[in-house]
Amino acid sequence: MTEDAFFARLFARLPAPDSTWAVPPGDDCAALVHGDELLLIAVDQLVGAKHYFLDTPPEAAGRKLLARNLSDIAAMGGIPTACLLAGAFGPRRDLAWIERFYDGIIELAKEYQVAMIGGDIASTPADEVASLTILGRVEPDRVCRRSGARSGDALLVTGSFGSSLGTGHHLDFTPRCREGRWLAEYRFPSAMMDVSDGLLLDASRICRASGVALRLDPAAVPRRTPQTTVAEALHDGEDYELLVAVPADRLPALRAQWPFADVPLTPVGEFLPGEPAILGPDGTPLPLGGYDHLA
Amino acid sequence: MTEDAFFARLFARLPAPDSTWAVPPGDDCAALVHGDELLLIAVDQLVGAKHYFLDTPPEAAGRKLLARNLSDIAAMGGIPTACLLAGAFGPRRDLAWIERFYDGIIELAKEYQVAMIGGDIASTPADEVASLTILGRVEPDRVCRRSGARSGDALLVTGSFGSSLGTGHHLDFTPRCREGRWLAEYRFPSAMMDVSDGLLLDASRICRASGVALRLDPAAVPRRTPQTTVAEALHDGEDYELLVAVPADRLPALRAQWPFADVPLTPVGEFLPGEPAILGPDGTPLPLGGYDHLA
Repeated sequence: MTEDAFFARLFARLPAPDSTWAVPPGDDCAALVHGDELLLIAVDQLVGAKHYFLDTPPEAAGRKLLARNLSDIAAMGGIPTACLLAGAFGPRRDLAWIERFYDGIIELAKEYQVAMIGGDIASTPADEVASLTILGRVEPDRVCRRSGARSGDALLVTGSFGSSLGTGHHLDFTPRCREGRWLAEYRFPSAMMDVSDGLLLDASRICRASGVALRLDPAAVPRRTPQTTVAEALHDGEDYELLVAVPADRLPALRAQWPFADVPLTPVGEFLPGEPAILGPDGTPLPLGGYDHLA
Repeated sequence: MTEDAFFARLFARLPAPDSTWAVPPGDDCAALVHGDELLLIAVDQLVGAKHYFLDTPPEAAGRKLLARNLSDIAAMGGIPTACLLAGAFGPRRDLAWIERFYDGIIELAKEYQVAMIGGDIASTPADEVASLTILGRVEPDRVCRRSGARSGDALLVTGSFGSSLGTGHHLDFTPRCREGRWLAEYRFPSAMMDVSDGLLLDASRICRASGVALRLDPAAVPRRTPQTTVAEALHDGEDYELLVAVPADRLPALRAQWPFADVPLTPVGEFLPGEPAILGPDGTPLPLGGYDHLA
């Protein structure tokens, strides 16, 4: 079973969110109607020896946990506001290590003005697992979801892809909050999400949510390093870049107005009518690959 | 360092929650102003071989995770509404085990009409850690906090204490949502919290938050079994009962109206002026004991 299938089955068995939930499960965040705005909420976690090495500096690991969650807020076009943190640490770590782990979170939280409003700490037999719940806010007419891509829309990507582990990008990446928010403010995206599990796998989630196919040009995908292969760019994961679907008639304005010279915004494909699938330039389906947490 | 001191230091270093947070960190839940109501939010976690045995039925373990969180909502006088779940499982567990773990959560979520609005799943080298973020709602004039106890108020407790591990109470307890909500609706509590780390340790947190002392009669504390010692009742933890501070002049009405014949509500002490401390009947301080997650 894939992780997507697992959660789909799980959510189907539970009481459904009521009408106060503007965005039910299935996007990067859920969203609750909150006055004139939406309250965004999501959870993500970080496992020692899985999401970082055991000798990774603890500040870098802690930073990564919050940065992953900020990326989820960015994907919705939102502004992060607050977080709750649950940490479970084993005998391998002393209080000094744990404090340095929190230092990494705090440093980034200050940068993004994210308050911490709750926490829990526990001990484990051996491993360390930390989970962070992020809250954010976004206007109802600016929220970006996975389900809005339409046939004819272009798919653009921020930044570059692949080799995230080898380059350390998976630790020191800058979550695309600035870019996601700018895109949402100008209402360019018809759909948006972030890439954590691999470009093609995550793009396929936009296809499925939107009920469209996608023709993608692998050669057009910016690669992180000269050594990065096309396959690595398509499948590696942990890119924490944005996938942005944009109606074709808005592309010229977007390209003219994009204000972030240090972050390329690159067209890599076009959405098509048809069953959710990703096709190469010659029309044959591309294997999705990517990282499935239950596979 | 104690867990309380650790979090106090941590929260002090982070951007403070702004004025939209009606209840900042330090209570069983934080609370965000949400229309006419407050949105309650808290996180708690469950670690395999720590919070349950490795051969505990997975349904019972999953149930416990949600039940602990429901108890935090109960302590604020709130109504639980939704949750997000992050689970990290090691090679010891197969998909069938994980599904049964989720079954335990789902069963209880249905009973309390709690929707699931987000989730993440990951793998670990060995251990299993699950964290759940709970949301709830409560009216601003009914929310119960730790900081409202005043000199002269009585301290009452629901249920009984001690021997939670030996009796299996730590797995099959009923979170006191019904009782907490009833108390809040009739505005009886001047302060309220739940007991997870030990009666005296948690009562000392009310004292500290409220700036009062407490005289407590250990012999008055209901014990879970005839074999349970007074010391176990005061210190064991995982009782998931409510500590309720009630102004003395409202005690007769409370005792007359308490509608839950199956759940005793027992006076065990009285708040006094003075430095936060818990004194025995003869006025000497009682050792707090209890379970500190960093001790």
